[in-house]
Amino acid sequence: MSGVMFSSSKKLGIVGGGQLGKMLLHTTQQWDIYTKVLDSDAEAPCKIGSNEFVHGSLQDFDTVYNFGKDCDVVTIEIEHVNVRALMKLEEQGVVVHPKPSSLAIIQDKGEQKMFFTANELPTADFSMFSNKEEVVSAITEKLIRFPFVQKTCKAGYDGKGVAILQHETDLHKLLDGACIVEDKIELHQEISVIGARNAHGEIVIYDAVAMDFHAETNMLDILICPVQISEDLLQQARQITTTLLQKLNISGLLAVEFLIDKNRKLYVNEVAPRAHNSGHQTIESSVTSQYEQHIRGVLNMPLGATDLIAPSVMVNLLGHPDYEGPVRYEGIEACLAQKGVHLHIYGKKTTKPFRKMGHATITHESIEEAKKIAIWVKQTLLIKSQR
Amino acid sequence: MSGVMFSSSKKLGIVGGGQLGKMLLHTTQQWDIYTKVLDSDAEAPCKIGSNEFVHGSLQDFDTVYNFGKDCDVVTIEIEHVNVRALMKLEEQGVVVHPKPSSLAIIQDKGEQKMFFTANELPTADFSMFSNKEEVVSAITEKLIRFPFVQKTCKAGYDGKGVAILQHETDLHKLLDGACIVEDKIELHQEISVIGARNAHGEIVIYDAVAMDFHAETNMLDILICPVQISEDLLQQARQITTTLLQKLNISGLLAVEFLIDKNRKLYVNEVAPRAHNSGHQTIESSVTSQYEQHIRGVLNMPLGATDLIAPSVMVNLLGHPDYEGPVRYEGIEACLAQKGVHLHIYGKKTTKPFRKMGHATITHESIEEAKKIAIWVKQTLLIKSQR
Repeated sequence: MSGVMFSSSKKLGIVGGGQLGKMLLHTTQQWDIYTKVLDSDAEAPCKIGSNEFVHGSLQDFDTVYNFGKDCDVVTIEIEHVNVRALMKLEEQGVVVHPKPSSLAIIQDKGEQKMFFTANELPTADFSMFSNKEEVVSAITEKLIRFPFVQKTCKAGYDGKGVAILQHETDLHKLLDGACIVEDKIELHQEISVIGARNAHGEIVIYDAVAMDFHAETNMLDILICPVQISEDLLQQARQITTTLLQKLNISGLLAVEFLIDKNRKLYVNEVAPRAHNSGHQTIESSVTSQYEQHIRGVLNMPLGATDLIAPSVMVNLLGHPDYEGPVRYEGIEACLAQKGVHLHIYGKKTTKPFRKMGHATITHESIEEAKKIAIWVKQTLLIKSQR
Repeated sequence: MSGVMFSSSKKLGIVGGGQLGKMLLHTTQQWDIYTKVLDSDAEAPCKIGSNEFVHGSLQDFDTVYNFGKDCDVVTIEIEHVNVRALMKLEEQGVVVHPKPSSLAIIQDKGEQKMFFTANELPTADFSMFSNKEEVVSAITEKLIRFPFVQKTCKAGYDGKGVAILQHETDLHKLLDGACIVEDKIELHQEISVIGARNAHGEIVIYDAVAMDFHAETNMLDILICPVQISEDLLQQARQITTTLLQKLNISGLLAVEFLIDKNRKLYVNEVAPRAHNSGHQTIESSVTSQYEQHIRGVLNMPLGATDLIAPSVMVNLLGHPDYEGPVRYEGIEACLAQKGVHLHIYGKKTTKPFRKMGHATITHESIEEAKKIAIWVKQTLLIKSQR
């Protein structure tokens, strides 16, 4: 498959044209691979850098099917796409990665959890419910104990679709719809491991990344690579990631989020079969970025080395909570003057409170210094709206 | 200037849309800077990745002037552009870097040489002639001795516009038009130093790069960084580059090519006020790529660190001598399987003998190993045409 993608009119379709897609387009431009991108925002980040850009709904069967019909390979940059359309494309000979059948499992958090347990992978104990009322009944019958985590089965990402209930008084937080309820893990650390596979079965695994909390704000948006945990836990995490890559028959990337509890026990939290927020820093800190790796994987090319070039800390640059509208950045020059700060501005036209508008990766030989600079960047680079 | 380039409709114009422009667009996309690119090829590499692409002649006054009128800042990716149009744009308030007055000097090899001597910079002795006949007379009168190098004043690059005459029997090689004739330096080594400056006067200098000849083919297309020469010579080269950045009032990059003779004496050969072939490897081997650095410089942003991340060797990937037409690549997969090989395919639609179609940078802790891999890449990745 890969040889023919170069120097030809063969097309790689990418369903979703946000920042993850934009960073995939860096590799397709570098290698001159022809791309066609679909996004629901006519001014999405991938409008620049793709060969063809199509404006349309990712959830609509006809839109996704018609988009993919003339592509040779189709991949995704977000899970919440019409999987039936991908299945039909696959039936008709388009190469689709991740496999639509695997994507269907991952799209539904209940199915995902059942897949983990069916494959004997450690994950927090859970129950499944059709709606909020069933959860309330289960609480009444003491089948569920506080504290617990409720996750809706569909369409949850970036913390949406998740409710944490500590006590009876939190019942108003319960979300509607089919859901799972999980034991709340007493968290020691949250880590992410990204692996990649190609259709030949070749597998590579990146260094694990730690998600660190800011002491004052408790905000979960500083990622640190490499993570400082025992080699035994790392080995478990790599092994689970390898198993998932194989069992889900992945070509391209699979990001696996893990929870580690106070007893240093590892649990799979959830997976994403695509480029992932926790892999941004591979652009500067790894020999092969996750984006290049995904392109290699979906096109069944040899995978790239994942060696760490430099320790790094990554921060998401979020829209200021008090501003909404056409975006305006403050403090960019100060950040560019700071050695080791690599800025990525996604090019979204409008900001909203906490919207992911960019990220910064700080490479530094000392992780502690990199953390300090990362926190300084967050405080310095402010994303507001015009007037 | 720089602050306003982010999150606004301000435009950066780039005159020239080839591979150097394409690599500049990587940074403008990463930072969401709005770009408009002019190229004479409707399918130039910069067609993808720019916000606006204009098809037209770089030498035509009206085309360049009209192109730049609605830009806030204009820069170049090739010297051979209409400099009068750039002067008029500057008069009318468009920020143009490099300065058109400096570009006028650099565009003419005679003026460039006189500029070096006027600033007491070491360069090979030379004489200037209006045409070929004057050169022949000077030979007859023994004012010029063999061997010598003839360079036409205008429009020479990539070895074009240069003739090396060893003996009387080489007279047929003489080129037409205004030219300079230079003493032929007995070459020990050829090196390139790239520096950058911004309008605040901040200056950074990259590690010097050596241009190495292939033992068998004598082809001049393996570049090695860092170069292994004495600290004294390096210091001289850095000092001369700094002087040139200042005297030419550069914002952005200046690439300076030096010759080192058998007696280890350094001569300035020529300069280019733009991203340069000898800086490709900074993408992977330096903290800040030359492309990002040029954008920082022309927008008067703080300059980036130039620290070396890894030793590297760069090879140009040239069109196979026996093929011309729609391009087809062979051996890409084998190269992608080799650790440390970073491929850049420029996306030119047609290949010609020796046309620059891409490049590969090999990063490796051992320069000797990197050289071996580079030579293997040149032998493995073949650029042919379709049937």
